[in-house]
Amino acid sequence: MILLLGASGYIGEAFVAELRRRKAQFLPLARRQVDYTRFDLLLEFLRAKKPAFVINSAGYTGKPNVDACELDKAGTLAGNTLLPQTIAHACAAAGIPWGHVSSGCIYSGAKISEHGIMRVEKDMTKPEIHALAEKKSPAIFGFTETDAPNFSFRDGPCSFYSGTKALGEEAMAGIGHSYVWRLRIPFDEFDNQRNYLSKVQRYSKVYENVNSISHRADFVKACLDLWERQAPFGIYNVTNPGFVTTRQVVEQIEKFLKPPRKFEFWKSDLEFYQVAAKTPRSNCVLDVSKLLAAGVKIRSVEVALEDSLKNWKPE
Amino acid sequence: MILLLGASGYIGEAFVAELRRRKAQFLPLARRQVDYTRFDLLLEFLRAKKPAFVINSAGYTGKPNVDACELDKAGTLAGNTLLPQTIAHACAAAGIPWGHVSSGCIYSGAKISEHGIMRVEKDMTKPEIHALAEKKSPAIFGFTETDAPNFSFRDGPCSFYSGTKALGEEAMAGIGHSYVWRLRIPFDEFDNQRNYLSKVQRYSKVYENVNSISHRADFVKACLDLWERQAPFGIYNVTNPGFVTTRQVVEQIEKFLKPPRKFEFWKSDLEFYQVAAKTPRSNCVLDVSKLLAAGVKIRSVEVALEDSLKNWKPE
Repeated sequence: MILLLGASGYIGEAFVAELRRRKAQFLPLARRQVDYTRFDLLLEFLRAKKPAFVINSAGYTGKPNVDACELDKAGTLAGNTLLPQTIAHACAAAGIPWGHVSSGCIYSGAKISEHGIMRVEKDMTKPEIHALAEKKSPAIFGFTETDAPNFSFRDGPCSFYSGTKALGEEAMAGIGHSYVWRLRIPFDEFDNQRNYLSKVQRYSKVYENVNSISHRADFVKACLDLWERQAPFGIYNVTNPGFVTTRQVVEQIEKFLKPPRKFEFWKSDLEFYQVAAKTPRSNCVLDVSKLLAAGVKIRSVEVALEDSLKNWKPE
Repeated sequence: MILLLGASGYIGEAFVAELRRRKAQFLPLARRQVDYTRFDLLLEFLRAKKPAFVINSAGYTGKPNVDACELDKAGTLAGNTLLPQTIAHACAAAGIPWGHVSSGCIYSGAKISEHGIMRVEKDMTKPEIHALAEKKSPAIFGFTETDAPNFSFRDGPCSFYSGTKALGEEAMAGIGHSYVWRLRIPFDEFDNQRNYLSKVQRYSKVYENVNSISHRADFVKACLDLWERQAPFGIYNVTNPGFVTTRQVVEQIEKFLKPPRKFEFWKSDLEFYQVAAKTPRSNCVLDVSKLLAAGVKIRSVEVALEDSLKNWKPE
């Protein structure tokens, strides 16, 4: 039996759907049933129910966006740092392997290969980086799981949200047996305030950037596949292979959904941060070679994006 | 046997001295021997050594002062929030009671009784509050253990340090059996960069304020007495009863040590924060009725302060 924490969240409900589809035995546990943020209660529950695997998709993301985390530091730390540490301890004490939904937002930028030398470029809004990204240049590489986070409390500046996610990975590292699944900007065909494709359509202006992104159902499938295939425990970047610019996403939205509105872009980072955002945003490219090398199949970002827009289900 | 974590720190070495004086069996454990920040290693050690009690005096205070914590958020969180949570989990899993050195700096101000109504005054530099404090007015009351911290991430603004200490108390609350011992501005007769009486002598200018403070040896004695007397587990404010103004401390220093220098005070909070400090400082009065009601004897702040200065040992 698989124990699922955070089943009612945006990612949690995708795990529920995929586990059902697989006819897997699973138990969604809500905090109002057992307060799994408390070590002793969680450990007692694990010892009683003996799940084969635990999935944690609970966390604190901030509503309506990551700026809200700056105003609730205790809640953000409790959800993103203390909770994974607690689950790691309880699972280790009970001898149960588990998987944690982390985030790729602990990186900023991409690795750029120039004349055979690899450098990190943190500013993805630079025109030359953007031009490379627009043409899907092979000079752009993503961060791998061995790269230390560079948008974290240890390597800032960062948002408080990203700091707590990076520290959450540290807090669970080396304790028992676990997967760290790094999600990045979830999207799919279901219109939803958490869906990247919905957000882009609703922003007053669009923030031009470059990102790896994760189709929600593809993400949970890949996470479960890692466990089912008995891939080695550890950290995995779990995005659709590749990356997209916001401009490419907007073009696809215009092509398939033909919205009545015209999309405007923020003129600059300066304008974006002065008007629309309070805390720095992570924009980054992730490398998914490790996921693919583990034998997990996942659609390219182009295919997943086109498919989502072709099958778009308005709210 | 008592297991002591953080034995090499300023408070840790006072525990060592007092445990020796009591001829108690104890084991100081350094991180280089066993990395007790790791749940699995700590739990294994606890199960092997079976201590009767664990003392945690390890933490992250920031050098030379609390401003440094703003620049090392990950280290501050790891030392003050993740560590007590880890120890709480390991001690709960091993069934061992423990005590944690926390801090009173999760409060700001004092409670003031006016016409039979109690209100919280957070600004201790207000002239009227100061006048009350100078004459040791019975209108000034300290925060008790049932008062929620008001200098924390949940009730800010606060320093990052104070936020992590308050969250550390939350992270260990309700797990197993533990004491939370709240220390506040340690001082004693031994000249040291961590000693409040040394700091006051070395500041270019002195920051006028009102505080409850803890004589270092009195503090560790009170902590150990709580355990030896089998006082109920829970939170205890552990300061010398009463409070002092910085001006009173300076007067006592002048009276007993007759330093060649003249003491100047910052003109205002504004000047202090513009010139000398980056992050807000906690200044507060704590109520120690609960400690005294548990039968623990501890000298008044006036007696402890005078005794320290009479027996002053320059570095």
